[in-house]
Amino acid sequence: MALKKKPVTGMKDILPAEMQIREYVTEQIKETYGRFGFSQMETPCVEHIENLTSKQGGDNEKLIFKVLKRGDKLDLEHAENENDLVDSGLRYDLTVPLARYYANNSAALASPFKALQMGSVWRADRPQKGRFRQFVQCDIDILGDPTCLAEIELILATTAALGKICPDNGFTVRVNDRGILKGMAVYCGFPEDSLDQVFIILDKLDKIGYEGIEQELLEAGHARDSVERYLKLLAGVSGDAAGVRELGKTLAEVLPLEISENLAYIMDTVTAVAETDFSLLFDPTLVRGMSYYTGTIFEVAMEGFSGSVAGGGRYDKMIGKFTGTDTPACGFSIGFERIVTILLDQNAQDQLLTTAGKKAYLIEKGMDDVRFREIIKEAMAERKAGVQVLVSQMNKNKKFQKGQLNKEGYTEFVEFYKEGLK
Amino acid sequence: MALKKKPVTGMKDILPAEMQIREYVTEQIKETYGRFGFSQMETPCVEHIENLTSKQGGDNEKLIFKVLKRGDKLDLEHAENENDLVDSGLRYDLTVPLARYYANNSAALASPFKALQMGSVWRADRPQKGRFRQFVQCDIDILGDPTCLAEIELILATTAALGKICPDNGFTVRVNDRGILKGMAVYCGFPEDSLDQVFIILDKLDKIGYEGIEQELLEAGHARDSVERYLKLLAGVSGDAAGVRELGKTLAEVLPLEISENLAYIMDTVTAVAETDFSLLFDPTLVRGMSYYTGTIFEVAMEGFSGSVAGGGRYDKMIGKFTGTDTPACGFSIGFERIVTILLDQNAQDQLLTTAGKKAYLIEKGMDDVRFREIIKEAMAERKAGVQVLVSQMNKNKKFQKGQLNKEGYTEFVEFYKEGLK
Repeated sequence: MALKKKPVTGMKDILPAEMQIREYVTEQIKETYGRFGFSQMETPCVEHIENLTSKQGGDNEKLIFKVLKRGDKLDLEHAENENDLVDSGLRYDLTVPLARYYANNSAALASPFKALQMGSVWRADRPQKGRFRQFVQCDIDILGDPTCLAEIELILATTAALGKICPDNGFTVRVNDRGILKGMAVYCGFPEDSLDQVFIILDKLDKIGYEGIEQELLEAGHARDSVERYLKLLAGVSGDAAGVRELGKTLAEVLPLEISENLAYIMDTVTAVAETDFSLLFDPTLVRGMSYYTGTIFEVAMEGFSGSVAGGGRYDKMIGKFTGTDTPACGFSIGFERIVTILLDQNAQDQLLTTAGKKAYLIEKGMDDVRFREIIKEAMAERKAGVQVLVSQMNKNKKFQKGQLNKEGYTEFVEFYKEGLK
Repeated sequence: MALKKKPVTGMKDILPAEMQIREYVTEQIKETYGRFGFSQMETPCVEHIENLTSKQGGDNEKLIFKVLKRGDKLDLEHAENENDLVDSGLRYDLTVPLARYYANNSAALASPFKALQMGSVWRADRPQKGRFRQFVQCDIDILGDPTCLAEIELILATTAALGKICPDNGFTVRVNDRGILKGMAVYCGFPEDSLDQVFIILDKLDKIGYEGIEQELLEAGHARDSVERYLKLLAGVSGDAAGVRELGKTLAEVLPLEISENLAYIMDTVTAVAETDFSLLFDPTLVRGMSYYTGTIFEVAMEGFSGSVAGGGRYDKMIGKFTGTDTPACGFSIGFERIVTILLDQNAQDQLLTTAGKKAYLIEKGMDDVRFREIIKEAMAERKAGVQVLVSQMNKNKKFQKGQLNKEGYTEFVEFYKEGLK
């Protein structure tokens, strides 16, 4: 029988040492978000294929693990394409299922509803180092609150969680608003129907710099005048709330003042009340890929690590696709796997995880019955008192056995021999 | 756009109130099993289809959610049957993935390896009340220990966890050994090749009673003499360790004495050292469905609730199917969903979950900026001190809003009005 030992391509087995870091991060997140009044909820990992392919998920919709129909519903003979074979798929994010969940259960939920979801999602992405096809997402969302209290609470909660998990890493929250993003481009004369293309190019700023942006915009056929105006405008913005208000005045002809004022107010309030130490910056070049965002957008970067560790924004139009009535919604997602990788890279286990009170009892083979029972009784008493006690047969290669147990966090060993302690 | 609001057939959305019970059970399990030295580990939810259909899973293999091949690998035109379309599936239990995990990672693991796995599994079972197609399993397994220390630790840990989760429910652990089960049937003259059939019938004892067993065995064509001898033997066994030893002597011709002695020794030791209050019974009629069991088997029933809340046993031959070398293995699985249902039925939320320190701040709309900021600052200070504070806009229907929040465990409300407290 040829059974396969390796996990399926792109997915991974999680060893006890990494599991301890994952559990640590999970606990910190749940505790912190609990304090901010977010309620845990869960959706099934399997979702209707119709919902997964409803154009909410952008490119992620190309990466769905699709689930075969079962029983009589599977008609291979008459199936003409993939869609005839499947009725569901593994969720590629937690946002689309949340929208369905809210549509299905809103009568039973508080309004506004503050949701905390942690769970695996699946994307059949090209496997690459550090990126897996099954990974955990950790989202908080506030549904039903049209005011900026939602953004303020989301930023406060996410920064509190990150500050707790990685107390020694500085981080920066960058914020923007899709309205401002659009207003700036329109103000500079880019045609409305080219805006998506402009933002896709702008989104590459990290990789290609301003010069690259200029070149790509020109290559895409945009007027030199617009491009130059745009780059000058972007470069001239100051990254604080005053900068947002200033830009708002500049854009007054194409953008209602409320939008810039709203973002500046969020920044002012967060800065005034936050208990965690971090930088808050207005970044007019922040795009965020997903097309479903309708207002504020945010992203968090951690010092010394590339890419973002958290991101989110307002998406007021998605839930209406399920219910027929728009419901204001705003969410912030922590990149759980990114955080775990950072902690593992920093060898954070030793600082973060307590190994105190973890003991291994090793019992020599052939121990007589009475003594054997006494040893287990002793272990039970220690466990009752809160100690973690592993009881195990002693192997011939005791040194190796201890080394392996050490990897799982055992630092204290008690050895029991037939003839008393050697 | 016709998006679907309901979850896919047979799966469920989990509301915050149930989620709290699930989290409570999860925490108790992780804490208790941690004390017994079980290390958390995880396998991907998606598993190779070859491993899922390797005859380890019995009838569960008929219930697999299969995952469609992707990209060029999917060749619909030349596909002749279902198997040509899929390369993987959702795991239907945690045991088969554990065996693969151990085969893949044993060099990095302690030996014996004490594993704790909690995770969802999927079975496309006929949907029925209280049974879902996605559900959580919670398994502990000891791999690499051929001695009964494994059974003793598994029973002690599982009963400690159950006693902690359901402190007011009495429960009974019934134990047996596949060798004894087989020995009894052989001793009574059933032919070796009919034993599986005999046990399938015996497994129905709960539903059809001894008379039903007698009838079905006779209908299946077994000799009246064997059937009568079998029923007499089963009825004459006493349920304590002495009963096991007595039976062992009776079966001495067909069964090595070590097997009954081993089970009696497990019972004696567990009884002597357990810190939790429960009944431990030898049950010669206990079968356990899965064909992979090779030795001891156990099952736990909770007073006042039908069916079992936990079960397990020794399966020394499964890991060898992956590695080529047999590795002793023994596991115990808590029926997580069953326990959650029992707690929900008992309305255990009020006793088990603390709502102390859960506060909701409700803010009237149009609050002035300065006061608004003060309120959030106050919430941040309370959160820092460990209080769970939800901050929300006050709805027009305040009473309804409070009622919904109450369902999520909020009992204390602080109301903030524009003009001061009304």
